[in-house]
Amino acid sequence: MNKLTSMDDLIGKAQVLTEALPYIRSFAGSYFVIKYGGQAMVNEDLKRSVAQDIVLLKYIGINPVVVHGGGKEVTNVSSRMGIETVFAGGLRVTDEEAMEVVEMVLAGKINQQLVGLINSQGGKAVGLSGKDGHLFVSRKKSPIKVWEGGQEKTVDLGLVGEIEQLNPQVVLDLSARGYIPVISSLGVDAQGRNLNMNADHVAGELAGALQAEKLLLLTDVEGIFEKKDGKESLISVLSGKKARELIKKEIIKGGMIPKVESCLQALAKGVKKTHIIDGRIKHCMLLEIFTDKGIGTMVVS
Amino acid sequence: MNKLTSMDDLIGKAQVLTEALPYIRSFAGSYFVIKYGGQAMVNEDLKRSVAQDIVLLKYIGINPVVVHGGGKEVTNVSSRMGIETVFAGGLRVTDEEAMEVVEMVLAGKINQQLVGLINSQGGKAVGLSGKDGHLFVSRKKSPIKVWEGGQEKTVDLGLVGEIEQLNPQVVLDLSARGYIPVISSLGVDAQGRNLNMNADHVAGELAGALQAEKLLLLTDVEGIFEKKDGKESLISVLSGKKARELIKKEIIKGGMIPKVESCLQALAKGVKKTHIIDGRIKHCMLLEIFTDKGIGTMVVS
Amino acid sequence: MNKLTSMDDLIGKAQVLTEALPYIRSFAGSYFVIKYGGQAMVNEDLKRSVAQDIVLLKYIGINPVVVHGGGKEVTNVSSRMGIETVFAGGLRVTDEEAMEVVEMVLAGKINQQLVGLINSQGGKAVGLSGKDGHLFVSRKKSPIKVWEGGQEKTVDLGLVGEIEQLNPQVVLDLSARGYIPVISSLGVDAQGRNLNMNADHVAGELAGALQAEKLLLLTDVEGIFEKKDGKESLISVLSGKKARELIKKEIIKGGMIPKVESCLQALAKGVKKTHIIDGRIKHCMLLEIFTDKGIGTMVVS
Amino acid sequence: MNKLTSMDDLIGKAQVLTEALPYIRSFAGSYFVIKYGGQAMVNEDLKRSVAQDIVLLKYIGINPVVVHGGGKEVTNVSSRMGIETVFAGGLRVTDEEAMEVVEMVLAGKINQQLVGLINSQGGKAVGLSGKDGHLFVSRKKSPIKVWEGGQEKTVDLGLVGEIEQLNPQVVLDLSARGYIPVISSLGVDAQGRNLNMNADHVAGELAGALQAEKLLLLTDVEGIFEKKDGKESLISVLSGKKARELIKKEIIKGGMIPKVESCLQALAKGVKKTHIIDGRIKHCMLLEIFTDKGIGTMVVS
Amino acid sequence: MNKLTSMDDLIGKAQVLTEALPYIRSFAGSYFVIKYGGQAMVNEDLKRSVAQDIVLLKYIGINPVVVHGGGKEVTNVSSRMGIETVFAGGLRVTDEEAMEVVEMVLAGKINQQLVGLINSQGGKAVGLSGKDGHLFVSRKKSPIKVWEGGQEKTVDLGLVGEIEQLNPQVVLDLSARGYIPVISSLGVDAQGRNLNMNADHVAGELAGALQAEKLLLLTDVEGIFEKKDGKESLISVLSGKKARELIKKEIIKGGMIPKVESCLQALAKGVKKTHIIDGRIKHCMLLEIFTDKGIGTMVVS
Amino acid sequence: MNKLTSMDDLIGKAQVLTEALPYIRSFAGSYFVIKYGGQAMVNEDLKRSVAQDIVLLKYIGINPVVVHGGGKEVTNVSSRMGIETVFAGGLRVTDEEAMEVVEMVLAGKINQQLVGLINSQGGKAVGLSGKDGHLFVSRKKSPIKVWEGGQEKTVDLGLVGEIEQLNPQVVLDLSARGYIPVISSLGVDAQGRNLNMNADHVAGELAGALQAEKLLLLTDVEGIFEKKDGKESLISVLSGKKARELIKKEIIKGGMIPKVESCLQALAKGVKKTHIIDGRIKHCMLLEIFTDKGIGTMVVS
Repeated sequence: MNKLTSMDDLIGKAQVLTEALPYIRSFAGSYFVIKYGGQAMVNEDLKRSVAQDIVLLKYIGINPVVVHGGGKEVTNVSSRMGIETVFAGGLRVTDEEAMEVVEMVLAGKINQQLVGLINSQGGKAVGLSGKDGHLFVSRKKSPIKVWEGGQEKTVDLGLVGEIEQLNPQVVLDLSARGYIPVISSLGVDAQGRNLNMNADHVAGELAGALQAEKLLLLTDVEGIFEKKDGKESLISVLSGKKARELIKKEIIKGGMIPKVESCLQALAKGVKKTHIIDGRIKHCMLLEIFTDKGIGTMVVS
Repeated sequence: MNKLTSMDDLIGKAQVLTEALPYIRSFAGSYFVIKYGGQAMVNEDLKRSVAQDIVLLKYIGINPVVVHGGGKEVTNVSSRMGIETVFAGGLRVTDEEAMEVVEMVLAGKINQQLVGLINSQGGKAVGLSGKDGHLFVSRKKSPIKVWEGGQEKTVDLGLVGEIEQLNPQVVLDLSARGYIPVISSLGVDAQGRNLNMNADHVAGELAGALQAEKLLLLTDVEGIFEKKDGKESLISVLSGKKARELIKKEIIKGGMIPKVESCLQALAKGVKKTHIIDGRIKHCMLLEIFTDKGIGTMVVS
Repeated sequence: MNKLTSMDDLIGKAQVLTEALPYIRSFAGSYFVIKYGGQAMVNEDLKRSVAQDIVLLKYIGINPVVVHGGGKEVTNVSSRMGIETVFAGGLRVTDEEAMEVVEMVLAGKINQQLVGLINSQGGKAVGLSGKDGHLFVSRKKSPIKVWEGGQEKTVDLGLVGEIEQLNPQVVLDLSARGYIPVISSLGVDAQGRNLNMNADHVAGELAGALQAEKLLLLTDVEGIFEKKDGKESLISVLSGKKARELIKKEIIKGGMIPKVESCLQALAKGVKKTHIIDGRIKHCMLLEIFTDKGIGTMVVS
Repeated sequence: MNKLTSMDDLIGKAQVLTEALPYIRSFAGSYFVIKYGGQAMVNEDLKRSVAQDIVLLKYIGINPVVVHGGGKEVTNVSSRMGIETVFAGGLRVTDEEAMEVVEMVLAGKINQQLVGLINSQGGKAVGLSGKDGHLFVSRKKSPIKVWEGGQEKTVDLGLVGEIEQLNPQVVLDLSARGYIPVISSLGVDAQGRNLNMNADHVAGELAGALQAEKLLLLTDVEGIFEKKDGKESLISVLSGKKARELIKKEIIKGGMIPKVESCLQALAKGVKKTHIIDGRIKHCMLLEIFTDKGIGTMVVS
Repeated sequence: MNKLTSMDDLIGKAQVLTEALPYIRSFAGSYFVIKYGGQAMVNEDLKRSVAQDIVLLKYIGINPVVVHGGGKEVTNVSSRMGIETVFAGGLRVTDEEAMEVVEMVLAGKINQQLVGLINSQGGKAVGLSGKDGHLFVSRKKSPIKVWEGGQEKTVDLGLVGEIEQLNPQVVLDLSARGYIPVISSLGVDAQGRNLNMNADHVAGELAGALQAEKLLLLTDVEGIFEKKDGKESLISVLSGKKARELIKKEIIKGGMIPKVESCLQALAKGVKKTHIIDGRIKHCMLLEIFTDKGIGTMVVS
Repeated sequence: MNKLTSMDDLIGKAQVLTEALPYIRSFAGSYFVIKYGGQAMVNEDLKRSVAQDIVLLKYIGINPVVVHGGGKEVTNVSSRMGIETVFAGGLRVTDEEAMEVVEMVLAGKINQQLVGLINSQGGKAVGLSGKDGHLFVSRKKSPIKVWEGGQEKTVDLGLVGEIEQLNPQVVLDLSARGYIPVISSLGVDAQGRNLNMNADHVAGELAGALQAEKLLLLTDVEGIFEKKDGKESLISVLSGKKARELIKKEIIKGGMIPKVESCLQALAKGVKKTHIIDGRIKHCMLLEIFTDKGIGTMVVS
């Protein structure tokens, strides 16, 4: 490589840093809630890049807070333990035995892996669940109605919960002391019963409670598309009204629904910006945060 | 019950509180490291009484820090997952698959149960492992020599670790903000490899690093006995020299060895008092702390 | 005593401590104003038990604040100094010479004794009067009307005062630094004239200014009785309305009147609970605070 | 008065303020211990001027700490209470009855008067004795030898004490929060027995414990004189060696001895400057502090 | 000088100090904004006395903040650099070249001189301009109308500004750390263009933003007079209404107009007292602050 | 541009940010002293890039401190003011008139420009000179010996100073509150006489006093070369010994000498790394700080 080129190249790199300056300035001291999941939680390369991004945010004065669920790993461990995964209307039914596995996998495996991952990039992560420091009190969800075999059925999803009360003090305390909280979506109700929570919803509620600047939900798609067969119709900015329309039309469906709900809930509680972004892109968070372009779909109220 | 008796009874109760006063005074602000295990981790009644004691300590101005291992639960889950538990010279060999179970059970199940238990008694617990906030860096233990079938063999215990460096900042930060840290004996080495740690040793090291006032190790025996057939020969105060003698004579043996080692190590690092106490006695910790009598065996340097 | 019994006994004692836990939790950080007087200020055994209770409260995170008057000791010293005690309509008239004795006895003798007593139990007491740190500014009470010899007379009680303005900063400052303020009911008016204050009233006002959790008035009776000949008719919970009725009926009379007034005044300013309790019972305060039963009469608004 | 003169006069006044500037600068934040006594404690005009000076010191950033004894007032009250004052070898013997009077007069009368006086000039004084906040622990003085009727006698002075241990925390805490501590020379020994202390000695010890910048002892003479018949021989600067000589020669004698001892003791513990000054001069302290001239006798080590 | 006289003299001096006490008490912690200018910025004796006064204020607990303009020195340096000073309707027109000189003289010469002067009297001054710490954002003043040669003309004064937004944080930060801020009346607009500001106006705005206790404007006259030929008609207290009248009548005119405007503006924003005082009198500020008499003209709303 | 390329491009940019992470981590909280000068102080593009770099450093947790001299601008203004610049042995002789210009140009023009420049990039700069907050006390340099016309002459450089005592408190205070100190190399001696200082020396001394992590000196050359005709012989790492050799050989000469001296002095006082870098390269500081390559010459002890 010739020397001049190399110097130009370096200067180009430096310029990238200074381009980030206005963003760093305007986000200093704010909270970013990151819902971590999908490929970014599986692919080694992506895992490391996500962890780097999180640690970088911390060092430049932003307070990242990470929320994660369990995904496929719960099913893996369950089957190895001979526990059958029951679905009703496409939803996982969580009995006591299943809940035990959920807790072990989320708090004992995935949470600890993520803590280790962030630490290996130089951060100081501390793993939490809803129990730790009374972070959130949950309640069992009411039975839901599902269509199955052409008829409506009422299904009790078992030990599945939703947030009743959120007390973010332990997150604030840890963030203020330089730690990065990593939170698994495990709840406990007033009677001490463990409950499985939807991690997207937890992230949205937490973002609201922290008056976060941004909520970032990592997915395995490019964003939300206007048409079912997608690709050409990526929506950059999605309004709440439009979102509800697309849900009704079943264009937004499945796992994307709680993500959109999470965004709307966070916005309703005062979060400034919410984003559904493609976790398969390396450094997707930095791209979203530090470029004007933005990636994925921004949901606005 | 007649009224006067009842009043006398109440006054008696009040007197008990004031008897605790000199102890409360002298322990205000100090750290107590509690190694939790055995029956006290299984029996519902004992579990609740231990949690009450811990919360009481916190409210009267002492900083309790709880350390726990996994014990039998690891074997239970392992067998349900079809993982064979391998012993060599009476010691558990931990391969990668086994380590995964150890982590899930310790950080995901037992730690969370204990956090929930303490919270249900009004404390604010936060679960930690060696990874959280870089609490401890471990290293793999060297292979050990064991006698088996009449001959010495060298056994690599696999992913079993010992503490290389202990950084108690996250424990201090959480304690100072009113939380009760609950720590599972899971380590991670500099390469990010998970390691299974002996919880007694972790408790001893941590007590040293915190310059704890007391180290309390809960066991399922009354204390250390001078003779093999025990009972009548409980030792109230055991010196380091005597301890080493009894280990050589194989009177102190098995799981009691790491407990005694933990005490001696803590004492060497400046911990004031170390106690091996009978966790099967309700409120055993309060008895040890708030009465002159003391229970179990106190180990002194 | 046989060993098992003794252990059961100890466990029973420990249980008493844990029974106090919910109260300790809910009172942490709050202020308790204690009006000290009667037998509890004379009997050696009771004096020590009251001091123990106060120090215990401080150590478990409550801020006790003690208020006292002078009682009989003023008359004793007066007579020894050849100063005649003048009563008008049953009330002590305080001229300048008498006031000098009141000040010496309250600030110089009783206050210092109580400070010494609390210190001897391990507390750090600091004696104060209304002057110290401008704690309260008083004003001379207007002449009152009394019935004497069958006719109404207007009596000027002399240097007797009531609180005009209360500035609790010095109490807050000392409490926050770990001290137990002990306050004599001595006032000073804007012109610097010393005034004798009713200690019950001072306690009630101070409880209000501190937004105290509890006001505890120690007396030499079991509480307030519904009937004049008492005993069987102790009132556990007394409403303000009922109290005013009983005063009119002269069932509540004499020294009990300022106590009830003190409670009502404190309640009006936001104090949560006010109690008139029997100071002749050992550890009467702990009984009131740490048992569900309660003792004496609770006055509610 | 003509206008120009008046303006010159005002400018002269302003100049006085600026002349004080270098002293204000160099003393900012330091402690001054003032032993208050003699005429300055009796004459109304002097009392007010001393109080003004103390408050002024506080406002310009110096921490004044006032120590006082009881003087003649103890004898007055004693005689009114029919208590005979016993002297042995010219020294007051303090039995229990006498001690009670000492405490009442010092803590209840003089201390409170001085607190009121300082408050009336706009300061925030808080009265203390040796008991308050465990300020000092005393011990009974050993019997002393005196010459009486031409022969040496051993006299037990009774409840007369000397400082065993001084814990200035409460003085530091109050000073830091803007209060002016006013301390009576009353001690208490480890057994809780009240002891009468020499106020000069207490002031010297306290100055040492606070690492005071200055110790100022107010007397009723102009200073220390070289010759018995005084006047012309005032010593401006007295060395420790010279002081011991003058004591031996009985030129320094009586109440001046503890004053000189107090100075020497304070100097030995690191106090920068110690002064015996004439309390009969209005604003004597300001003169000493804010002029180069100095008044009275400065004792140096 | 005879000794008694000298002592009386000293006592008189001490009395002056105590006369200042009530003022020191009431002004503790407040901000005084001082517009420095005129003879007090030229005469060596006055310069030193002003600096002494400012440092004295700081030491006795007041926060002085100094604002200055450039005055004649700008014209001097301009002429030396061959830059012609252009006036339009009696007002200085500031083009870019002139502005460069204004900045150099104000920030580089006068500000630094004043910092040095205050430092030499024992203060810790820090020089600031409107740029430092974004102290104030200015905007170019609109062209003004002037009468010239009997007709109205519109004159663009060039780089002359007025305050758009004032951010006093840097002044608060420095004051809190013990420094004395010295501020030159140099502004910068949002585009980074340097602007010449009227120092009287800057002082008034700053006093408002700091919620100052006093605004003191130093001039070269005795105050505001009711009649044109002055002397006998000095107004001690001037109301806003009267001030506007006198401006209309052209009795208040020229450089006195911005001073009066500055006072009225400060009063409108909550400043307690504003004073126009004669800077030619030595220690004029101390006279104004520490005597009841007051000097010059106090402007009230 | 096609979309995929653009995304790759963005990812590349993000990667640059994460490459900076290890440096950001290791430099968090440390001080960097930057001697600003040469082209970087003249060229608009470079000026902006330097300011961006400085602000970026501040936002990512480093404390930049900027030091500057005056350079050619002093000569410009001097000549416009008709002041002749006198050189003796190639060195500027500073008489009083010249010093006045130096002060105006440095503190009034260049310092304010740089403050404005940094502010325009979003930083909060505060300009200082040696006087502000008593930052440094200087002394006049002794006359130096120079060769002129083939013979040694002693030349008094006039008002040229060197640092006698450095008190960095004001820099620490401002940095801690989020400001960026910008310091002109103007000194003042104990007599209040202004002195012209060499900015390189000031930067080195200041770096030492702050225990800076890095000292960065911006020049107009690529670094230090081993041979006189340079280019191919750039020295990446220069030892003190080698530096002294090259000075003796006159390969290091002129304005480079004080730069090298500054580095050596800083290293002697504990500064970790010192660098002479080419200020003509855009973002030269970021290149030096955030890449492994490094640019220019690093001087080591």
